[in-house]
Amino acid sequence: MGIQLKNKAMDVAMKIKKLGQDDPRRIIHSIKVGVALTLVSLFYYWKPLYDGFGASGIWAVITVVVIFEFTVGATLSKGLNRGLGTMLAGALGVGVDYLANLSGQKGEPFVLGIFVFLIAASATFSRFFPGIKARYDYGVLIFILTFSMVSVSGYRVDEFLTMAHQRLATILVGGAICIIVSIVVCPVWAGETLHNSIISNINKLANYLEGFGGEYFHCSDEHVTIPEKDKPFLQEYKVVLNSKSTEDSMANFARWEPRHGNFGFRHPWKHYLKIGSVARQCAYHIEALNFHLSPHQLQEPSQFRRMLEVPCKTISSESGKALKALATAMKKMTDPSPSSQLHLNAAKSAVNDLKNTLKSGTTQISDDISNLLAIIPDATVASILIDIVKSVEDLSEAVAELSLKAKFKRVSPEKPQLLHKGTIKPFVEEDDNVEAQQQPHVVITVKEIENNNDEDLRVNKKPGFLF
Amino acid sequence: MGIQLKNKAMDVAMKIKKLGQDDPRRIIHSIKVGVALTLVSLFYYWKPLYDGFGASGIWAVITVVVIFEFTVGATLSKGLNRGLGTMLAGALGVGVDYLANLSGQKGEPFVLGIFVFLIAASATFSRFFPGIKARYDYGVLIFILTFSMVSVSGYRVDEFLTMAHQRLATILVGGAICIIVSIVVCPVWAGETLHNSIISNINKLANYLEGFGGEYFHCSDEHVTIPEKDKPFLQEYKVVLNSKSTEDSMANFARWEPRHGNFGFRHPWKHYLKIGSVARQCAYHIEALNFHLSPHQLQEPSQFRRMLEVPCKTISSESGKALKALATAMKKMTDPSPSSQLHLNAAKSAVNDLKNTLKSGTTQISDDISNLLAIIPDATVASILIDIVKSVEDLSEAVAELSLKAKFKRVSPEKPQLLHKGTIKPFVEEDDNVEAQQQPHVVITVKEIENNNDEDLRVNKKPGFLF
Repeated sequence: MGIQLKNKAMDVAMKIKKLGQDDPRRIIHSIKVGVALTLVSLFYYWKPLYDGFGASGIWAVITVVVIFEFTVGATLSKGLNRGLGTMLAGALGVGVDYLANLSGQKGEPFVLGIFVFLIAASATFSRFFPGIKARYDYGVLIFILTFSMVSVSGYRVDEFLTMAHQRLATILVGGAICIIVSIVVCPVWAGETLHNSIISNINKLANYLEGFGGEYFHCSDEHVTIPEKDKPFLQEYKVVLNSKSTEDSMANFARWEPRHGNFGFRHPWKHYLKIGSVARQCAYHIEALNFHLSPHQLQEPSQFRRMLEVPCKTISSESGKALKALATAMKKMTDPSPSSQLHLNAAKSAVNDLKNTLKSGTTQISDDISNLLAIIPDATVASILIDIVKSVEDLSEAVAELSLKAKFKRVSPEKPQLLHKGTIKPFVEEDDNVEAQQQPHVVITVKEIENNNDEDLRVNKKPGFLF
Repeated sequence: MGIQLKNKAMDVAMKIKKLGQDDPRRIIHSIKVGVALTLVSLFYYWKPLYDGFGASGIWAVITVVVIFEFTVGATLSKGLNRGLGTMLAGALGVGVDYLANLSGQKGEPFVLGIFVFLIAASATFSRFFPGIKARYDYGVLIFILTFSMVSVSGYRVDEFLTMAHQRLATILVGGAICIIVSIVVCPVWAGETLHNSIISNINKLANYLEGFGGEYFHCSDEHVTIPEKDKPFLQEYKVVLNSKSTEDSMANFARWEPRHGNFGFRHPWKHYLKIGSVARQCAYHIEALNFHLSPHQLQEPSQFRRMLEVPCKTISSESGKALKALATAMKKMTDPSPSSQLHLNAAKSAVNDLKNTLKSGTTQISDDISNLLAIIPDATVASILIDIVKSVEDLSEAVAELSLKAKFKRVSPEKPQLLHKGTIKPFVEEDDNVEAQQQPHVVITVKEIENNNDEDLRVNKKPGFLF
């Protein structure tokens, strides 16, 4: 019994440790809440303050507990909502109470009752509007709360002006303490968190794509020796699939945040949702790809698979590298185009190779080809990989758009040094109409590469070292 | 200016109307909140009650505003959390205050300050545990709130036992009013909502699959005449992709709900999350399929496509019908196996046909086959459809498991009337090892069909009318 209890305690201690290690900001946040609450207790402990605010000081305590959230944006959003809701409702409560007073001793409860009902019901309904729900839900709740309190207790206590004033003042003090502690002591910015989580998601997709080729094409040995749990990249991308709700709320909170780090007040947070959505699209493709990696589908490669191996591996790894480049550029807040475009072009060129192989190479694999069924899994993988290049391109465009909107650093503003420019036409046959309509044309344009000091682009510094 | 204002007002009015029409429960909920708040105002209006509770009556108002949520489960969860949190924190507050008193006039604020800091920080940290976050987040918040209030104001007012008692009593009254109004007046059950939303999601997937064949295979005319917005089934399935967070919270709330309708107190709500996750898996496959339905990919069908048309259309529509049958069985809370198994078997049999066609039919399409690239899009569609049958099977198993756990009605308990039973072996060739490993074996087992009165199974009543 004693040992069991001890084990249980050890278990909980380990969980606590892990929770703290996974994200140390959690420990800091807990300490910050403790500090803010202890600070606000001064209202009760310190006599002069108590004399000023009276028993209303308790509202400062309530405010701190209720609005102190993990991120600055959430705290600001709740604080401003609470302040605004309280003020509006206070003013309306005074007005309604005045009206109710006019209707005499008997009529007063009825008039107040009708107003409470109407205002509570309509304000509650307004919370169903998506726009209000996303940004002002808490404000409307506080509005209903304060209005009911002011109008109802005003009927009894007859001093609600003092009450409203005290309540507002203590809320302001409580809110100010929260916001100051939240911003000054190791702030957790919703915007920065959103930025980093999008980057980490793109990196997870990249890791999968970089590892996929090796897993799918020569796996017989490796696959047995290295257990799947030592290849986390095969699972990690799955968190991207369900990332929408977190990103939505982070973006909502980020909009309340002031300038911080490299993020201005009007940083295009909404655009991150677009990037997130394109990243999910890419993750859906990877999910389809992953379906073809189940153990029983890995066996001796057929002739057909060996034929596809080189282009498919290139597509996969270059797509992964393009994503990595996008993530790095986002992290450094620089223009992503030069670095990611190189890998994207290499991936597109491999798509072209793959298509040409498929078009012309059937004679080499006549054994396989007589049984179309045997080649379908590999053909599907190839087809999904082609789709993935398309979605990596979309992601690249979305990030480039962000870099324009958010004014990411352009790489060196001096006169660009032209290294190489040209267009490689894709291989097109006469009888190719069907395919040409089905797949997007691949036109490889080697873009101007500018001379710059960016670490990521160092590989391009020697002219002619492009491919 | 006047006209603009009028237009704006009209716009808002239309939005309100739409919001109410989309889900009339929203209007009812708003009225319910109004009623509950007006009821609780009685504490202030009605003298005998006011004498009993004093100014603490305001806590009843606060409780109603704060805990009245859209669903019964959420209201119960918040109410119980609030009650429990208040009681625990009240008891702890009394204990801490007693300890602080022992340390004398000077030491008291320090002892209280230390306790407030420690308890607030550790309780805040506990909110990061996923298990606590999911079910007791609000309770911990209220715990911190009440503890701070009781210990801090106890130091000053020296009557916190009365305060704690009054606060608890008013919270109980406020909570009771909420819960009663929430349950008695047109209740919105989180459990029922979850049940219906899973059914509706499965139906959306089914609609897509039933419509896909027609869209993909003979679309040249139809596609132009019917604009995409008149085919909502092509878009509706997309909500399934991001359904996780809603389902998670619904399931959490449902666990607090008492028996309602056909759902017992221990209804396996958690299992709905499994069904939801399998449904999302199916939706990911459909997303991949949908990628091949983009307008520029629809043209004159090739020989190869015409060859695949019949089996692919059958797979798609039978999978859709199997899903429809699952949804219907869930709706009626009957055993889903008999009705869905028929369609699933038909789909599997079509998968077999498709595989045989692919294996043997290459000679007919020697024109196409010389250009493998041209057949890849159609081959991919076929391959995804085969994957979809697998995921429909998973979904069917998950629903069957639910029907066991939730004790859905077995179809007629009398002696089953055996109609037909047998096993059709799949077509297997000698040189088929690769494929046999790649694709799951298809063994069609015609199950015993029981005689019953279920509407959905009426088609099976005539013996021999099975296929």
